[in-house]
Amino acid sequence: MITYERKVRFEEVDAASIVFFARYLNYAHEAMEELFGGLEGGYVGTVMGRAIGFPAVHVDTTYAAPLRYGDTFTIRLDVVHLGQTSCTLRHHFERGDRVHVATVAHTVVCCALREPGGPRKLPFPPDVRRLLEEHLAPPADRREGKVTR
Amino acid sequence: MITYERKVRFEEVDAASIVFFARYLNYAHEAMEELFGGLEGGYVGTVMGRAIGFPAVHVDTTYAAPLRYGDTFTIRLDVVHLGQTSCTLRHHFERGDRVHVATVAHTVVCCALREPGGPRKLPFPPDVRRLLEEHLAPPADRREGKVTR
Amino acid sequence: MITYERKVRFEEVDAASIVFFARYLNYAHEAMEELFGGLEGGYVGTVMGRAIGFPAVHVDTTYAAPLRYGDTFTIRLDVVHLGQTSCTLRHHFERGDRVHVATVAHTVVCCALREPGGPRKLPFPPDVRRLLEEHLAPPADRREGKVTR
Amino acid sequence: MITYERKVRFEEVDAASIVFFARYLNYAHEAMEELFGGLEGGYVGTVMGRAIGFPAVHVDTTYAAPLRYGDTFTIRLDVVHLGQTSCTLRHHFERGDRVHVATVAHTVVCCALREPGGPRKLPFPPDVRRLLEEHLAPPADRREGKVTR
Repeated sequence: MITYERKVRFEEVDAASIVFFARYLNYAHEAMEELFGGLEGGYVGTVMGRAIGFPAVHVDTTYAAPLRYGDTFTIRLDVVHLGQTSCTLRHHFERGDRVHVATVAHTVVCCALREPGGPRKLPFPPDVRRLLEEHLAPPADRREGKVTR
Repeated sequence: MITYERKVRFEEVDAASIVFFARYLNYAHEAMEELFGGLEGGYVGTVMGRAIGFPAVHVDTTYAAPLRYGDTFTIRLDVVHLGQTSCTLRHHFERGDRVHVATVAHTVVCCALREPGGPRKLPFPPDVRRLLEEHLAPPADRREGKVTR
Repeated sequence: MITYERKVRFEEVDAASIVFFARYLNYAHEAMEELFGGLEGGYVGTVMGRAIGFPAVHVDTTYAAPLRYGDTFTIRLDVVHLGQTSCTLRHHFERGDRVHVATVAHTVVCCALREPGGPRKLPFPPDVRRLLEEHLAPPADRREGKVTR
Repeated sequence: MITYERKVRFEEVDAASIVFFARYLNYAHEAMEELFGGLEGGYVGTVMGRAIGFPAVHVDTTYAAPLRYGDTFTIRLDVVHLGQTSCTLRHHFERGDRVHVATVAHTVVCCALREPGGPRKLPFPPDVRRLLEEHLAPPADRREGKVTR
């Protein structure tokens, strides 16, 4: 599990004065970049140098309480499913006052980015797999309770 | 069902040169604003004038194919669940070349926005309910196959 | 001169409930895309197909009155300076109630985008130059009152 | 002078794979929030608690070199003009490799935000003025070379 702290910025709210619902996915992506920061060269090196990326194939978000301008929040991110070529990252959002704000289940696929004809599915390279394994949720807390090898 | 057409803007792609996954929720919100444009005063009048809003409580998105700068796409939006205070909007994204791009299931709750202590759940007002009923998916194609009254 | 109409979207305001000041540049870019829509293949074809782009080198914005959610506005865009490789687009923003909202003076440079070593300055190709000439402001209303050839 | 460090995020580039020109104003606003972080309650407390804000009236940006995904940069912010009700913040952007990237001259007006009829100009409160004075550029390096009292 990693934790990622953030405060809501001035321009991240909408006309109802709460954080716009799409922004939670920006925040989740920032947390994922933080997670992959554990790789040599970080997420930037992985995407730009090695041309390996992790596009989303499924994102399921439950919104429990609003965030407002000036709120701080923490994302706790762990891996609840790990397959050969895809994994599900769970982002648990908690506001500074300890209120649970949202949960994002973010399923991504490992892809070679610079292929003729567009991104091509790829088994996780060993270093990426190792990193994801380090952040696996406890077995009872995983999706489908297993890790595919 | 309504349809909403859009083209991808210059700044809507990410460093992998595809539309950033969070943007699909911005697009879905635009389609929802279009839907509620059918109300007197439109979505703006509903939110700003009547102080009634529709914050998301659950959003489930499946990404099937990428969008790139210059692509046009169409969202077909219908209502697949209609309860007393909440409904689920289904946004079906199709690219100009007829490829299915994404499906967003967007569950919102009807709320009074200017309450002391924050937004408060509200049964859909009759005009809003009528509008949502007009755009209900065929019965076989609904979530749970029913409309709650 | 071209005109471009737009309404303010739900997520385009900030915590002070007015359109965030950076957004005006997004709007100006949309108007510029509309202008270059007059080229064969449009702006998309120019950028993606011909690999010609127009990065900003200088932007000067005067903010005169706020925009709020639900406002509509019109941008009137003309060309107030036309050089060999650069031009200045003037975007005049007017709100639906006829109030002058902002003026953006947007100077861009014509560049070949896919050069080894990054974008390289380029004289405007004849079709681009012709288009810009068509939208030149009246002589008395130009910057420095002249068109460089 | 304050300094503010940032890295370019995955979704902050455009279809030409450089940071979109409007984003520089988001970055400048972040630096300004950092500056006003020196006030009791920070910028959030000032805007939300005291209902005092600093809307832009003029922004002049010169772009000298591009930023790309993965770049880090530093903003050095100082105050180059200080009037009774307005000031000009100068944001000097430098990339991690020491290349000068952009300069934003950002003129804001001190306003009471919650007035009937909209924001109303206000002389800087003493604590805000004191903070701005602390960050004044050296006299020779100011706009018009003076501070209005």
